[in-house]
Amino acid sequence: MVKLIAYYKEPQDKESFDKKYFEEHVPLAKKMPGLVKIEVSRLKGLGNLPPDFYMQADLYFNNAEELNAAMISEEGRASAKNLMSFAKEVTSMSVAEVIE
Amino acid sequence: MVKLIAYYKEPQDKESFDKKYFEEHVPLAKKMPGLVKIEVSRLKGLGNLPPDFYMQADLYFNNAEELNAAMISEEGRASAKNLMSFAKEVTSMSVAEVIE
Repeated sequence: MVKLIAYYKEPQDKESFDKKYFEEHVPLAKKMPGLVKIEVSRLKGLGNLPPDFYMQADLYFNNAEELNAAMISEEGRASAKNLMSFAKEVTSMSVAEVIE
Repeated sequence: MVKLIAYYKEPQDKESFDKKYFEEHVPLAKKMPGLVKIEVSRLKGLGNLPPDFYMQADLYFNNAEELNAAMISEEGRASAKNLMSFAKEVTSMSVAEVIE
């Protein structure tokens, strides 16, 4: 299993970000072909430490080929374009192989 | 569902880190009471971009109370102590609520 992990730093306007993220972006992301599961988490600090991020999304695919195909698909490009329209400054992404 | 997310930056000696992590730390972490699932991922860059981290571990618990109880349990403290013995400089952690 592989996943595309999106890390979101705290946006300036959290209410606006959340609204666009959950009402527009997540439904678009869920249309990506081959997507096995999407998991969105809201982070909190640990003890006195601040959270590493505001939110994190993990998009699971069966293998790297299916992840890559999803990203260049029409649905994947529409999802990415939407995200960049409101979250470009706070988003960073990595691909990850689940090894345990 | 909540999770404890551990982010690991690239260690100086990856071979030594991996050996201690998978042979010592993961077995200790798996002993934490209430742990539902542990998922360890190795990150890769996306396109030309470098990965955000070297590895990431997501430890799932049914709720915040069980996560907190696990962290202060004997097994949780043994697991944390082990991790700090070789990965203190590269580790950062957050608690996260799975919301979607």
